[in-house]
Amino acid sequence: MKVSELGEFGLIDLLAKMVNSSPDKGARQQLIIGIGDDAAAWHGDTSTQLATVDSLVQDVHFSLDTTPWHELGWKAMAANLSDIAAMGGAPRYALVSLALPNHTEVEDVTALYQGMIELAQQSDVAIVGGDTSSAPLVIITITILGSTGGKDKPVLTRSGAKAGEKVAVTGYLGTAAAGWEMLTRQLQFDPEATACFKEAFLHPHPRIAEGQILVDQGVKTAIDISDGLISDLNHICKASQVSARIEVERVPILPAVKANFGDRTHELALSGGEDYELLFTGSAEVIKKIRTAASCPVTIIGEITTDKPNEITIVDGKGNRVKLHQTGWEHFTTR
Amino acid sequence: MKVSELGEFGLIDLLAKMVNSSPDKGARQQLIIGIGDDAAAWHGDTSTQLATVDSLVQDVHFSLDTTPWHELGWKAMAANLSDIAAMGGAPRYALVSLALPNHTEVEDVTALYQGMIELAQQSDVAIVGGDTSSAPLVIITITILGSTGGKDKPVLTRSGAKAGEKVAVTGYLGTAAAGWEMLTRQLQFDPEATACFKEAFLHPHPRIAEGQILVDQGVKTAIDISDGLISDLNHICKASQVSARIEVERVPILPAVKANFGDRTHELALSGGEDYELLFTGSAEVIKKIRTAASCPVTIIGEITTDKPNEITIVDGKGNRVKLHQTGWEHFTTR
Repeated sequence: MKVSELGEFGLIDLLAKMVNSSPDKGARQQLIIGIGDDAAAWHGDTSTQLATVDSLVQDVHFSLDTTPWHELGWKAMAANLSDIAAMGGAPRYALVSLALPNHTEVEDVTALYQGMIELAQQSDVAIVGGDTSSAPLVIITITILGSTGGKDKPVLTRSGAKAGEKVAVTGYLGTAAAGWEMLTRQLQFDPEATACFKEAFLHPHPRIAEGQILVDQGVKTAIDISDGLISDLNHICKASQVSARIEVERVPILPAVKANFGDRTHELALSGGEDYELLFTGSAEVIKKIRTAASCPVTIIGEITTDKPNEITIVDGKGNRVKLHQTGWEHFTTR
Repeated sequence: MKVSELGEFGLIDLLAKMVNSSPDKGARQQLIIGIGDDAAAWHGDTSTQLATVDSLVQDVHFSLDTTPWHELGWKAMAANLSDIAAMGGAPRYALVSLALPNHTEVEDVTALYQGMIELAQQSDVAIVGGDTSSAPLVIITITILGSTGGKDKPVLTRSGAKAGEKVAVTGYLGTAAAGWEMLTRQLQFDPEATACFKEAFLHPHPRIAEGQILVDQGVKTAIDISDGLISDLNHICKASQVSARIEVERVPILPAVKANFGDRTHELALSGGEDYELLFTGSAEVIKKIRTAASCPVTIIGEITTDKPNEITIVDGKGNRVKLHQTGWEHFTTR
């Protein structure tokens, strides 16, 4: 069987099973979360330790036609910091592994690093190591190490969602996808919309502070929206063995996206990835407190149900079901 | 300027300077070793923390023609564990980022993982996370996290070598290169030599226990031999601002390599990489103690001099200088 038949998530499940079923001499004893969440977590001496890694592959995850080197560095760092944010932790150290073609310009590599350094500094993260190697295309792999505030501070997982909880998101969805569409298809918009879409796609801000607010307010379940709302909500539903209903009219979308993408607006907001907002579950009361504490919008977009295990229903303002053509990004599969 | 003109080590120097000169909000305060050694090291609460990352790129670092999937997994894990060994630490957790073509067979991926799991288990390392993504070729990036035995336990760096110290290595050199030559050029040897070369190339054993013995015996300076003896000794000389003289006749080489590679034996032992032995410096007395404590051969092959800063001299049994055509592996450059 080819990996394209199994798909990315099927492959991860298979590999996780292999790893978890292997006999253990003790290294796993301190482990809290292994393969299958946004980051790994284990008991440190005075706090819970977090670690995550992600590779960005040229012409799979990014194109140098739409993403300049500096922004590529920023985005690569953002994608990884976002995984620590989705655990409710504070990122601390970064390791960068860079594979590059021999003909790459040195000034492009320094621009890439400058982008990474800029966001790392803003996030109080130190780049402490890495390696470089030759390759026929650009691959950027970043490892982020972090921790929770204290030993007994819980982490946000994908598996704690309970029936009756509300589903909420930070910020606005679909803006990064609007930026991607604009840059890829060379669409022309007014200067304000152009700047807004470009900023969302090229300079996403990982929700590190918000992730920690979620933990402080008692939220148990969160994920960052990297593949798309439905795809990432599906990860929560699968891990928590629950279903969810999303009211499409409640999904927060910027007016500029609605104005310029018309019919396609909901597709961008529900299936477009790379917004790096947090998607989480909790009681209405808890979400109200988070709304007060957070410096960004926090919106309830639906709820966790148990109608059928592991199914996501999308309804319009009248309660009628909405069908989506595409639900998000998955590697290896051709959809 | 292209990265091919700057070379791998020039590029690393440049990027390290950028990272180290960026203003700091505090994240670097706990840092002991940043970019430029085998692993990063920082002060943890009760021990020094270590982290390293390395990418293996298909047809740059390995060929699937000579390295079956299972062995590829083992080697990828070994290369990274070896970096922790070279710091004198104990590896603990691994994160694996895997980029694969869509047409890859699932059984090949599971064989790859089985190889990684096998060595991880033997080394008491838990694979705790990672990601998979689609790519036109295979790229395996492994991050290893580890620690030293205690808070005040020093780490082995590249920068502590002092004039007058002896230079020593664990095990034998050139055996992995003999295996690479045999498999790549389809050379035929007797069964015993064939098995020995194959084992060295496909199943290297990182010197984790030996690295810790070095620390316990007071060694300050070590590196693992991944690029080749001369290339890796050069890293020590550059970081320590010293020179070294190697007596080629003292370099430990298995009789099977000498018997089958004749004139090329010294080239394999001095420039061939991937033996993953430890190269270190210390007094004759300290090295004698290490020889007693270690379960593998430990051989003095030369000494640290200050004749000229950062120059490696290779001499034969009569003290005459020997010239090498190739000194080791460096990415991006065409030599």
